[in-house]
Amino acid sequence: MPYRSPVSEYKFVLDHVVGFGDVAATETYAEATPDTVDAILSEVGKLADEVFAPLNRSGDIDPARLENGVVRTSKGFADGYAALVEGGWLGLAAPAEHGGMGLPQTLNCAVNDFLSASCLSLGLNPLLTQGQIEALQHHAPDWMKELYLPRLISGEWTGTMNLTEPQAGSDVGALTTRAVAQDDGTYAVTGQKIYISWGDHDFGGNVCHLVLARLPEAPAGTRGISLFMVPKYIPDADGNLGDPNSLRVVSLEHKMGLHGSPTCVMQFDGATGWLVGEENKGMAAMFTMMNNARLGVGMQGIGIAEGALQHAIVYALERKQGRTPLEGAEGGTGTILDHADVRRMIATMRADTFAARSIALACGVAIDMAAATGDAAWKARAAFLTPIAKGFGTDTGMRVSEMGVQVHGGMGYVEETGAAQYSRDVRVTAIYEGTNGIQAMDMVARKMMDGGDAANALIDEISATAEKARADLPELGESLWEAAETLREATEWMVSRGELNERFAGAVPYLTGFARVLGAHFHLRAALAEGGDGPRTRLARFYVNRLLPEHVGHLAHATCGAGDLYALTTEELTA
Amino acid sequence: MPYRSPVSEYKFVLDHVVGFGDVAATETYAEATPDTVDAILSEVGKLADEVFAPLNRSGDIDPARLENGVVRTSKGFADGYAALVEGGWLGLAAPAEHGGMGLPQTLNCAVNDFLSASCLSLGLNPLLTQGQIEALQHHAPDWMKELYLPRLISGEWTGTMNLTEPQAGSDVGALTTRAVAQDDGTYAVTGQKIYISWGDHDFGGNVCHLVLARLPEAPAGTRGISLFMVPKYIPDADGNLGDPNSLRVVSLEHKMGLHGSPTCVMQFDGATGWLVGEENKGMAAMFTMMNNARLGVGMQGIGIAEGALQHAIVYALERKQGRTPLEGAEGGTGTILDHADVRRMIATMRADTFAARSIALACGVAIDMAAATGDAAWKARAAFLTPIAKGFGTDTGMRVSEMGVQVHGGMGYVEETGAAQYSRDVRVTAIYEGTNGIQAMDMVARKMMDGGDAANALIDEISATAEKARADLPELGESLWEAAETLREATEWMVSRGELNERFAGAVPYLTGFARVLGAHFHLRAALAEGGDGPRTRLARFYVNRLLPEHVGHLAHATCGAGDLYALTTEELTA
Repeated sequence: MPYRSPVSEYKFVLDHVVGFGDVAATETYAEATPDTVDAILSEVGKLADEVFAPLNRSGDIDPARLENGVVRTSKGFADGYAALVEGGWLGLAAPAEHGGMGLPQTLNCAVNDFLSASCLSLGLNPLLTQGQIEALQHHAPDWMKELYLPRLISGEWTGTMNLTEPQAGSDVGALTTRAVAQDDGTYAVTGQKIYISWGDHDFGGNVCHLVLARLPEAPAGTRGISLFMVPKYIPDADGNLGDPNSLRVVSLEHKMGLHGSPTCVMQFDGATGWLVGEENKGMAAMFTMMNNARLGVGMQGIGIAEGALQHAIVYALERKQGRTPLEGAEGGTGTILDHADVRRMIATMRADTFAARSIALACGVAIDMAAATGDAAWKARAAFLTPIAKGFGTDTGMRVSEMGVQVHGGMGYVEETGAAQYSRDVRVTAIYEGTNGIQAMDMVARKMMDGGDAANALIDEISATAEKARADLPELGESLWEAAETLREATEWMVSRGELNERFAGAVPYLTGFARVLGAHFHLRAALAEGGDGPRTRLARFYVNRLLPEHVGHLAHATCGAGDLYALTTEELTA
Repeated sequence: MPYRSPVSEYKFVLDHVVGFGDVAATETYAEATPDTVDAILSEVGKLADEVFAPLNRSGDIDPARLENGVVRTSKGFADGYAALVEGGWLGLAAPAEHGGMGLPQTLNCAVNDFLSASCLSLGLNPLLTQGQIEALQHHAPDWMKELYLPRLISGEWTGTMNLTEPQAGSDVGALTTRAVAQDDGTYAVTGQKIYISWGDHDFGGNVCHLVLARLPEAPAGTRGISLFMVPKYIPDADGNLGDPNSLRVVSLEHKMGLHGSPTCVMQFDGATGWLVGEENKGMAAMFTMMNNARLGVGMQGIGIAEGALQHAIVYALERKQGRTPLEGAEGGTGTILDHADVRRMIATMRADTFAARSIALACGVAIDMAAATGDAAWKARAAFLTPIAKGFGTDTGMRVSEMGVQVHGGMGYVEETGAAQYSRDVRVTAIYEGTNGIQAMDMVARKMMDGGDAANALIDEISATAEKARADLPELGESLWEAAETLREATEWMVSRGELNERFAGAVPYLTGFARVLGAHFHLRAALAEGGDGPRTRLARFYVNRLLPEHVGHLAHATCGAGDLYALTTEELTA
């Protein structure tokens, strides 16, 4: 059994766990009717199952390569991309006025989930274009919107994000790429960018680079950064491709995974660029692009978790080893799935994938509600959930795919099986679009500048779920209640630390601990939705009893402060 | 700075943490004087640093390959192996009567640690030979010992372990390779074996295969398995190599990592074999071989953790990103190491490597004390610690190398950096020589058949350390005391479960939780050894406050029983 997109799982989570009904009830998203949602999930599921999934291994063993300065993509990728374009999937959440469908981001999450699960290296391509669409929509001048947006939304052209330079990664303010204003209103962009995913391809059309650069005499750091559109080919006003721009792919990185996705070193030599937004205000546009992309990367982690889970299930249901505890008993399969330890692994993979997906979709719902209502509380929730969705989604992708290898035993280490590829491919998702450390620091600093209001609003909802569960599922309700109290204390501790470094010293475990408790909240919602008895209740019980207790360790770690880290001198740490 | 073997760290741990002095005080190991230990550590450290480390990347990018049925090893590996042989390192713990040094296994742990850290794929080779030496020493007839042991101990010949078949992995009793007695007292061995590490090479000498096979009409399962010596070349009584045996390498596996180690599919076609031990008693010999190898594999994980830690430190001390909290302050480096989150990662890597290494070396000490004294309590401790040393050692290798990639940010995902290789290479150590799931099941079943005596004896020592710490380090002592009580309760729970599957359902988290608490015990011993103030005390404080609390989650998970796992039906788990 190859990968099958979890369509009915999505319907359940949307309807019963994350409150998608609220989104569909807004005027903005009135078109997101149940029928439309069903049709979208089924259709993108079909694309993932039938077109993307068969390309996954091909992308791994036949990596993208650079030939005479041109990127040649893996066999079949161009056709896969064409099918994606044909379905109009790039424009699902894009504005209708430029040819998009104008549907909720929450549904776009399904697209990123299914396409990542089936072929992450190709599925990364549209994610970058989507980020560019958002950035242009909010910051580009009208002429640029009219020229670029329809073509990006249709997928005729693709987009990239050119931020990183060798000396400027997490510290984007350190970049040195220069842009000099020309007499004709354009800018000449010069510099080298690294880690440019899908910096080139052979799918046809244009490759539209959004490039962060510095104007002469711009202020130092992030306040002196501007954003430019630097297309591979200079288009005329009708979108016909003209002369090639002064830019090129210098080399491709040789990576641990994601071989089908060309990761380019890009050289710009006085390339013609057009300003996006205002001079020296490039960071704002970049954050628009990245915030969108962060949720998308979280979905990548979740998609890989789903793919690895399904892959492990297939193997477990085929593999027989030894007498099993269910031999002769009802429900026994005679396969390794009957062994307690394998069952524990599969149940963990399943329970965590559900938790991470629910968190990310709740983030999607908050983004949509913020867009539809303009409500500040929804905006704050979207902002607060984004780093959790990214950090926990990708961590879950790593943990689940690692467990998937383990379920396979020795076969998991042999590449032909495909289990190892999930593990190698997903590894970068914890790094790009802001490392998970950066996500956690964003969470405890910028996202808690409200004194913890967004965090506490969520914790109140968790407590409410626990309260609700007390009637039908008293033990689970009690466990969640206690966990919410521990989380509340840890949150109070965080907020009370004026010195940000005190928070940073526990940021990553705080994010993980928060996600652990949130996951239980969504599991209980699912259990309550089926009346407290059924498969979702049994999975919730597994999660609450076995995985939720991890929050104790994480939150203890989160609230240690920075003292012990610096009491260890650099010499002592590195001796 | 390339890899440097942690020689002084070893001296400290041996002298002050794991009680190696007791081993050196026995008559059996009287030669393990401080001077000898120093010389051994320095010399093997030199081999690892100067010869093995430069081969590590070469083994990854220039994998072993099969040419016309013969394995060609990675460039430089033959020279590396020759240097290993020249040092006599294969025989460090082997019996003096056959040319070994007769030194303690604990010192052999250092060899496996350093060689794994510097080049795991080549370092795996001697580990297999060492296992074979142990098996022959305990089970082979005298003529075989005299013919094979000196040559294996010198390293002139190498050894392999042929257990796994496609349908017989964790369930070794399902193997079908046949052995038929011949008139001349030999056996004709026929069958296919998979995952045979170093099943062939071009280092010269003989490749000695220990093969598990089944005699005609042998009982089913593990009671009908016999062990055979099946050499690549048939030696005469003087050890001169004669005709090639009827065996061949069919293919090499394409693996996630460990590319320099040829993983062979072996075909035996009526190959000539000699019985080792008694007919149908092959499992006993196999366990001798595997028990030794399990500690060795634990050391592999620990070695990789050390390598990944050192590698990450070098990067962190070079990389500058953004303003750091130590800017202008004393001790600031201006590098990413000054950032709290990077410091947290490096400290975690360091603290866990220390914990895992101390556990493994305590296992080594128990093995040596058992061998020297014949004392049943030491034997029980060695048996109990072996699965923990293997499981936690390799889990630590995975966690630490994953964190090493994270410290590198985007550079970690690029293969040229070398960080990803640690992560890919170490992945198999959690699988081979019995998966970590199998280790944990062994721990809660066979290793607790004593009613928990071995476990409780250890827990008593942990409590004693906590008690001792109360004077100088009251908070840390209190935390360890409470953790020991939680562990004691979890252990009582385990022992009280007559139905083994109840234990198996929490075996892996029990192993992890036990190791977490044991780690704190050794950290406190180190702290107390320096008088409760100094770098080791600061690292102990980090571990106890930040990592030890994880035991709460693990042990809660460990004691859930099997009910919830099977309440979830196979259909529900796999839908």
